[in-house]
Amino acid sequence: MTPREFVAEVKVRFADVDHARIVYYPRFFHYFHIAFEELFEREMGMKYPEVIDGDHVGFPAVKTEAEYRSPVRLGEVLRIRVTCSRLGSRSVTLHYRAERVKDGVLCTEARVTTACVDMRTFTSQVIPEKYRELFARFSEA
Amino acid sequence: MTPREFVAEVKVRFADVDHARIVYYPRFFHYFHIAFEELFEREMGMKYPEVIDGDHVGFPAVKTEAEYRSPVRLGEVLRIRVTCSRLGSRSVTLHYRAERVKDGVLCTEARVTTACVDMRTFTSQVIPEKYRELFARFSEA
Amino acid sequence: MTPREFVAEVKVRFADVDHARIVYYPRFFHYFHIAFEELFEREMGMKYPEVIDGDHVGFPAVKTEAEYRSPVRLGEVLRIRVTCSRLGSRSVTLHYRAERVKDGVLCTEARVTTACVDMRTFTSQVIPEKYRELFARFSEA
Amino acid sequence: MTPREFVAEVKVRFADVDHARIVYYPRFFHYFHIAFEELFEREMGMKYPEVIDGDHVGFPAVKTEAEYRSPVRLGEVLRIRVTCSRLGSRSVTLHYRAERVKDGVLCTEARVTTACVDMRTFTSQVIPEKYRELFARFSEA
Repeated sequence: MTPREFVAEVKVRFADVDHARIVYYPRFFHYFHIAFEELFEREMGMKYPEVIDGDHVGFPAVKTEAEYRSPVRLGEVLRIRVTCSRLGSRSVTLHYRAERVKDGVLCTEARVTTACVDMRTFTSQVIPEKYRELFARFSEA
Repeated sequence: MTPREFVAEVKVRFADVDHARIVYYPRFFHYFHIAFEELFEREMGMKYPEVIDGDHVGFPAVKTEAEYRSPVRLGEVLRIRVTCSRLGSRSVTLHYRAERVKDGVLCTEARVTTACVDMRTFTSQVIPEKYRELFARFSEA
Repeated sequence: MTPREFVAEVKVRFADVDHARIVYYPRFFHYFHIAFEELFEREMGMKYPEVIDGDHVGFPAVKTEAEYRSPVRLGEVLRIRVTCSRLGSRSVTLHYRAERVKDGVLCTEARVTTACVDMRTFTSQVIPEKYRELFARFSEA
Repeated sequence: MTPREFVAEVKVRFADVDHARIVYYPRFFHYFHIAFEELFEREMGMKYPEVIDGDHVGFPAVKTEAEYRSPVRLGEVLRIRVTCSRLGSRSVTLHYRAERVKDGVLCTEARVTTACVDMRTFTSQVIPEKYRELFARFSEA
């Protein structure tokens, strides 16, 4: 069974490309973070500041892996597909695939593991149930 | 009498240029902010977080004016000269001139007016004496 | 008669805010550039790379003025209204007003003058007719 | 025998931190790229544009792995130690360790594999000898 995917789109802007006229590679993590912010808003109706400042729940990255397969250029639109590779009690790994809309090519793929922390103390905590349920919706398993 | 200038240097990095292979124009304000942060550190021995989190003194921009005279490219080093155009009781205008080190050309010039705020309430306050004294050292008048 | 406005929206992302938890002030120029890129796409059906790489027409900023009236925070959506303040033969001044969608407050306002250049030589040129016509649609005069 | 390390330093700036007041995690890759640019300049006396525009040699990232062990805050200085994990004929993996200067804590560690390409065609090429020799100086093996 294919896992359910969360999908967000971003457009490559003038400032996103570097001297080589392709997207500066750290920028993909920014795109993936935009998809992450949208996940809470569109799936839970919670704006991201409500998550971190309201619920005091933060998800700092602790580990990332990425593969850059095809360069991406100014004006291209990327469709970012998000699934959940691993859902632990205190951390979660999301899997992001950035596919160019115009030709369907998978350009960049990443797995980002984030800890769950209490934003007031920046210490690890068990992922609260409503967030666990959110990530579980997109589980690859 | 020539006013005393505060001088900082920045090097143009791969990510600072845009698709046109010149420094993305909003980036100059970032360079000027770096010079601003260095001002406190080198002139007062205070790291910038001590200013904003220790003294709770912030300087949000309220008005900017800039002229972009010559494009700046990857790898070039800019010497940023900082003077104080206007020192009010609750705001200060700093004057930044970014000059290319290799040929002395003035590439970008800006005036940035910042309010002085209490960072705990984000409300206007009179510039504390030690900061007023700092800005006065570089007064153009 | 009220001039016609071009309108684009941007959402404030996690990386757009600074240590003071408000939008880093140079970032507004990035938002305005996004509106500028959208102008060509939505009004002329031209993606921005077609303008600069296809038509070899570039619009580097030569002068900017901005006023920052109200701080903008994470998750807020800005509606950017664009009009044309001045349309010269070789340069154009666009007027950007960023208004917070949730309360209609005008947060930041800027005027950005861009030269028109031939991107192959980076030298000044007369604004080609189709682009002149585009800017004229939004003229304040 | 300990491999030779290339060392560069970066200071965390106001714009580098996010809403959580720690360095936005994609930003570390930017810091590592700065160290990469410095490598050519300080070890070979070549400014980075001479590498990519002069020699037409580019090193786009094809794979990255990173671990974020300790959050980094505004004003902190990071010492970035660079060694070479793997030197292939057409790609190289550099190993970056960002250590906080004030306490010596290893905050972030990454391995970035870059292909070697001809910048005129953006196609893979064998790493030219002078660059191979550069990377070999810092080999971990």
